[in-house]
Amino acid sequence: MKRFAIIGVAGYVAPRHLKAIQETGNVLVAAMDKSDSVGILDQYFPEAAFFTEFERFERYLVKLKNEGQGIDYFVVCTPNYLHDTHVRFGLRLGADVICEKPLVLNLHNITAIENEEKATGKRVFTILQLRLQPVLQKLKKELANSNTFHQVKLEYITPRGNWYQYSWKGDNSKSGGLATNIGIHLFDLLIWLFGDAKSSQMLNQEEKKMSGIIQFQQAEVRWTLSIDKNDLIDKSLNSYRLLEISGEKIEFDNGFHNLHTKSYQEILSGRGFRIKEVKKSIEIVSKMR
Amino acid sequence: MKRFAIIGVAGYVAPRHLKAIQETGNVLVAAMDKSDSVGILDQYFPEAAFFTEFERFERYLVKLKNEGQGIDYFVVCTPNYLHDTHVRFGLRLGADVICEKPLVLNLHNITAIENEEKATGKRVFTILQLRLQPVLQKLKKELANSNTFHQVKLEYITPRGNWYQYSWKGDNSKSGGLATNIGIHLFDLLIWLFGDAKSSQMLNQEEKKMSGIIQFQQAEVRWTLSIDKNDLIDKSLNSYRLLEISGEKIEFDNGFHNLHTKSYQEILSGRGFRIKEVKKSIEIVSKMR
Amino acid sequence: MKRFAIIGVAGYVAPRHLKAIQETGNVLVAAMDKSDSVGILDQYFPEAAFFTEFERFERYLVKLKNEGQGIDYFVVCTPNYLHDTHVRFGLRLGADVICEKPLVLNLHNITAIENEEKATGKRVFTILQLRLQPVLQKLKKELANSNTFHQVKLEYITPRGNWYQYSWKGDNSKSGGLATNIGIHLFDLLIWLFGDAKSSQMLNQEEKKMSGIIQFQQAEVRWTLSIDKNDLIDKSLNSYRLLEISGEKIEFDNGFHNLHTKSYQEILSGRGFRIKEVKKSIEIVSKMR
Amino acid sequence: MKRFAIIGVAGYVAPRHLKAIQETGNVLVAAMDKSDSVGILDQYFPEAAFFTEFERFERYLVKLKNEGQGIDYFVVCTPNYLHDTHVRFGLRLGADVICEKPLVLNLHNITAIENEEKATGKRVFTILQLRLQPVLQKLKKELANSNTFHQVKLEYITPRGNWYQYSWKGDNSKSGGLATNIGIHLFDLLIWLFGDAKSSQMLNQEEKKMSGIIQFQQAEVRWTLSIDKNDLIDKSLNSYRLLEISGEKIEFDNGFHNLHTKSYQEILSGRGFRIKEVKKSIEIVSKMR
Repeated sequence: MKRFAIIGVAGYVAPRHLKAIQETGNVLVAAMDKSDSVGILDQYFPEAAFFTEFERFERYLVKLKNEGQGIDYFVVCTPNYLHDTHVRFGLRLGADVICEKPLVLNLHNITAIENEEKATGKRVFTILQLRLQPVLQKLKKELANSNTFHQVKLEYITPRGNWYQYSWKGDNSKSGGLATNIGIHLFDLLIWLFGDAKSSQMLNQEEKKMSGIIQFQQAEVRWTLSIDKNDLIDKSLNSYRLLEISGEKIEFDNGFHNLHTKSYQEILSGRGFRIKEVKKSIEIVSKMR
Repeated sequence: MKRFAIIGVAGYVAPRHLKAIQETGNVLVAAMDKSDSVGILDQYFPEAAFFTEFERFERYLVKLKNEGQGIDYFVVCTPNYLHDTHVRFGLRLGADVICEKPLVLNLHNITAIENEEKATGKRVFTILQLRLQPVLQKLKKELANSNTFHQVKLEYITPRGNWYQYSWKGDNSKSGGLATNIGIHLFDLLIWLFGDAKSSQMLNQEEKKMSGIIQFQQAEVRWTLSIDKNDLIDKSLNSYRLLEISGEKIEFDNGFHNLHTKSYQEILSGRGFRIKEVKKSIEIVSKMR
Repeated sequence: MKRFAIIGVAGYVAPRHLKAIQETGNVLVAAMDKSDSVGILDQYFPEAAFFTEFERFERYLVKLKNEGQGIDYFVVCTPNYLHDTHVRFGLRLGADVICEKPLVLNLHNITAIENEEKATGKRVFTILQLRLQPVLQKLKKELANSNTFHQVKLEYITPRGNWYQYSWKGDNSKSGGLATNIGIHLFDLLIWLFGDAKSSQMLNQEEKKMSGIIQFQQAEVRWTLSIDKNDLIDKSLNSYRLLEISGEKIEFDNGFHNLHTKSYQEILSGRGFRIKEVKKSIEIVSKMR
Repeated sequence: MKRFAIIGVAGYVAPRHLKAIQETGNVLVAAMDKSDSVGILDQYFPEAAFFTEFERFERYLVKLKNEGQGIDYFVVCTPNYLHDTHVRFGLRLGADVICEKPLVLNLHNITAIENEEKATGKRVFTILQLRLQPVLQKLKKELANSNTFHQVKLEYITPRGNWYQYSWKGDNSKSGGLATNIGIHLFDLLIWLFGDAKSSQMLNQEEKKMSGIIQFQQAEVRWTLSIDKNDLIDKSLNSYRLLEISGEKIEFDNGFHNLHTKSYQEILSGRGFRIKEVKKSIEIVSKMR
């Protein structure tokens, strides 16, 4: 049974990590968040130590380590701009790190993480759950067996309310903006499916929507990303996700269930996605800014 | 359609209020929380303005008021020790106020709220949802038609994890302690069912559990309150709630569904619970400290 | 002896207010700041109640008021963008308010303050200490007795370190930018000396410096404002302030001593500067943004 | 020229460190504090990078290190209970650390620091400025040449206002209480002068004052520590410090000037006080709690 600690436990994505830790038969020993609205812990790990101050969290984890009870994995669910520093913190604790996407905001932030990986001998994994989605995995196999160059259309419309712009997600210096915060998944998916990006062109860039064209090795993709509900043609829907490959529509709204647990299973089996896997998508979104 | 604003929207209990506002056909125009983990707004009121700073929230609500678009109701879901000051803030905005329990920590805090009610001509309502629970309402009627003096046992075991002690709920100066934060419901229920308390005796008072005996007009109640999971005899349960009246067990674990919406319906119909209704239970828990 | 409360007591300008309260023979009864680095209180008012939470400060001041021990003056030394909301808070406490410059960031913020002045019958005063500087008062008299139209040059170079851009002062949404945070004094001074502004033209607007030309009734003023130390020609100086009127240089680097105390004396004598006095300078800087 | 970074730069004691860095001919490259009230930097190191978030500070310092421009010394001026974690942070950056007193709150906190010293090969120094005070240094020499056992009286009355109890200094879990926050200096001084403590007895322990008797190898000391101004017999004084050795009064109110700079000179010359020097005084104050 592996021992985990998590930072950012009061946030939106943390419950999926708690569930994944539990479903893979492991244990959370410590959690931290500036906000103490963490009743969610009762559902998964009521015994976990909890801290609202980073410093007290550090003291506790160092104490565990010095007593030979150190954690095995450190999970990072904090706002994007804090990822790199929290990843380094986890590595220095002698733990492997599981970091939510995007790993970092800028390519140059990766160097300092790689240095720390080398210094500590520990590894950083990131969550790229779309690569584990069954429909997309099937698609990946089909594309791998073909040489066809495709015309692709990607539409990803997931409306958010006014709060979004007044949270850290709406502050580009903290989230990296739409392309980084929401789009990173998709650009990673496209690279994984169609090969490296050769060129990228922005068509439109607003606060709530972006679109562009990217040339990949096996496809030209016209993409649109929006959090504006006015972009939903069918107002009865909550969101709209379309991937159209040479005229064929791929439905991937379902099958998202339990992808964090699958990600954890992969990581624990030694097949998690490491730093080099994420560099290309971070490069794309960095350049868009 | 009434216009609402809410403070404490990122907290545990806020979703029930958002649901109640929606289910009673009303609208949330503004929300505030120090934490920006408020994705919940998308499910209910994505159009609501959101603020992480009290001052900017105040500015917005005053502006609405000055434009003749002021809010009708101000909802308070903040940590207990802030209730009275946020209630006054709502009243001064010219709104009626709906405040989570407990209304205040100490009896003397009520005076300043009553003064503000008088000065503004607005009203404060509190959430006493157990009084709206069907099983308990039936019980209330039966007891009202009888003169029997009862021996009553109340056990309320709702385990919380370690985080609880390190959140504001574990700080007595902020939550008032177990009796105030969790027990206030039960003491209000007992007064409502059995009449005024004549005397109260503590049997045990620990960080995670308390017990005592209270003499009411129509009953002597031995009560136990615990958040320690070791007090659950059946470890497969998440919680245990027992009300035993003269040997008869009353099951009230169910029927909690939608009690906030019912509370809102009562308030909007002019039948909400006002300050004088809560004084007696606050007096009991104040004395316990 | 008048009773004062202050908000923002840990900040840069607060000591001048504490000194002014003491030197005018009055008393501070309560102080608040999010930061608890307030050892300065020991020099002036060790007996003052101190709070790090706005809500507890409010509770205390309301309690004093309800006991007939309310404060007479509420002093606002918080970051600029909070001024208007804290001014309203003071008025609602039944106190007159003394607010640091700039009173507000935008002209439209004034309306809500004026409404609250009317509703409460209390008054808002602002600190315009340059109008009380002896050299400038003498100049004002001379200009008032003449009809000459002047060519004026104003240079105001007061270097700040890198921290400035990473404090609230460097965030335009919080400080209003250089023209508002630092320049407001000067524009008020120019209006006071030379009459209303008829037109204003920006020549340069950078993060650390701004310059422009303003036509006043009795003067055309070329102004430069900078916090960049590279703009100091004589590097041995800490700052450089020049007012040149039709070729004559006015030295006003000295005589700044005790201007806050003088401001308080004026306010306490009923001659303080009220809202209408500051509207014109706020209008100028609002338009620059 | 050595390169310094400081954490806690907005606090009470930071200016003495800035002055010491400057007076020893060194340079501050980065500073951090949660509060942005840091105009003090302009007087010493306007070029220093400044951060209000720990994570961004970490990123910057790691970047400097990776570029071969790492800091030589890391200075810790944060609230007491954060000292140990910030000390470890500095060591991990590859810097020697200068930490304000008390180094830690509890003896067991020292182990984790010593481990980090060993792991990094870097050193921790603490500020024990009384040992550098000329009058006390002279006294130390005299005592060293004598075998007399002394009856000693120590009175240390340094009044603080109400704010003290509502700052971190008034929270025992953060400051360690009076004996730790203020007394640590004195107990270190006494050990240094009179040898190890053999036994310690508390006579009185209140929120604002403490007293006791300690048996040292060469003295029995009756000590009183107070922050209550009522304990000042001469109300015209701001403080009262008395050390009476076998009936002879030692005046040490003066000579405090520049002791931080002297401390820095010692540290930079390789003669600073390291962990083992502070263990004994921390042991005394830990036991008092």
